[in-house]
Amino acid sequence: MRARKKKWAPTELANNPRIIRDLDEYANRLHDYFDNTNPIYLEIGCGKGRFAAESSRRNPHINYLAMEREPVILAAAARQAEAVGANALAFLLMDADQLLDYFKPGDIERLYINFCDPWPGKKKRAKRRLTHEKYLNMYEALKIPELHFKTDNRPLFEFSIESFSSKGWLIKNVSLDLHVSQMEDNIKTEYEEKFSEKGFPIYRLEALPPPMHII
Amino acid sequence: MRARKKKWAPTELANNPRIIRDLDEYANRLHDYFDNTNPIYLEIGCGKGRFAAESSRRNPHINYLAMEREPVILAAAARQAEAVGANALAFLLMDADQLLDYFKPGDIERLYINFCDPWPGKKKRAKRRLTHEKYLNMYEALKIPELHFKTDNRPLFEFSIESFSSKGWLIKNVSLDLHVSQMEDNIKTEYEEKFSEKGFPIYRLEALPPPMHII
Repeated sequence: MRARKKKWAPTELANNPRIIRDLDEYANRLHDYFDNTNPIYLEIGCGKGRFAAESSRRNPHINYLAMEREPVILAAAARQAEAVGANALAFLLMDADQLLDYFKPGDIERLYINFCDPWPGKKKRAKRRLTHEKYLNMYEALKIPELHFKTDNRPLFEFSIESFSSKGWLIKNVSLDLHVSQMEDNIKTEYEEKFSEKGFPIYRLEALPPPMHII
Repeated sequence: MRARKKKWAPTELANNPRIIRDLDEYANRLHDYFDNTNPIYLEIGCGKGRFAAESSRRNPHINYLAMEREPVILAAAARQAEAVGANALAFLLMDADQLLDYFKPGDIERLYINFCDPWPGKKKRAKRRLTHEKYLNMYEALKIPELHFKTDNRPLFEFSIESFSSKGWLIKNVSLDLHVSQMEDNIKTEYEEKFSEKGFPIYRLEALPPPMHII
């Protein structure tokens, strides 16, 4: 997501209590931040944060972590979290490539990837897609038991099915037109709302890593 | 596909040399019909046969078998095969449930399933879908190394991805809008042509059984 400069962003980033500023302090013990033993659900690339905030509002017994690498967007997301009455929800200014630096196996009970960058075109760029084999290896290393994935990008969804399949992940609850199949309790991201209003299909699936990796 | 009565159908069924009438004679040795060692590609539910006929015209070194359980439709398909200049193409009046009665492991090198009945609705009916686990077990038993699947039916395609995945099949070359992604050498079935002209997406994938079953 592109970020425009916002005057209030630096203050928000410096003071919003939902933003975990000292990442190194919480490396490998992010659970401590929440001071409870509830499961952690992580969203990579939370954008303006509506999905994470609303998920948290509805599920007070889940600890949500929302990751975003664009500071201004993260600031906007953290600012909005209060307004919607989010519960246990914290934000990380972080890139997906740093996952293994801050999480240890077993930390994350569920991973959300919503409308990530499709990195269209050249094969070389495919490596940057969050459903590329390279990232699936990271999710497996972290023993994340389930991943929920949504996108409006057809080629990305095609690529992702093939990627999960080639790595032996189990693909479940596939929807090739989410808003027609009327999944109960779907929480729309900002992007999803705009896009689906135009009548384009939203694709969704859940994927579980191969059993040998979960144990 | 619904069949209307046709006056010429009985004659066609009785005389068209492309129809293998005595199935029992060729049980477990369908290769003998072609009198060569070229690979056999089987289409289950060939409808009016355009796909099989055109495939055969383009690929003279492949033996095509086109299966259909509706006699009148099979008669129409066989009648048309000559007109398009099909090469090694024969027709079987047969139901998918009879596959194991007439083929032995290794006979079929590729399986085509094009626009099969989606059996919508109740879970009980799902068993009749040609991508249901029950049928995948049959394809595995026959050691069919690859399956090519097309449909316009969204719920059927969603179901099929999950079915292939749960059985450990490798899903490849997924297309969620075949005529936009412009797959080279796609041969349209009669049904596909009508449907895609209306602007609806055609879904396609290839699937390979788990390695242990191929050996």
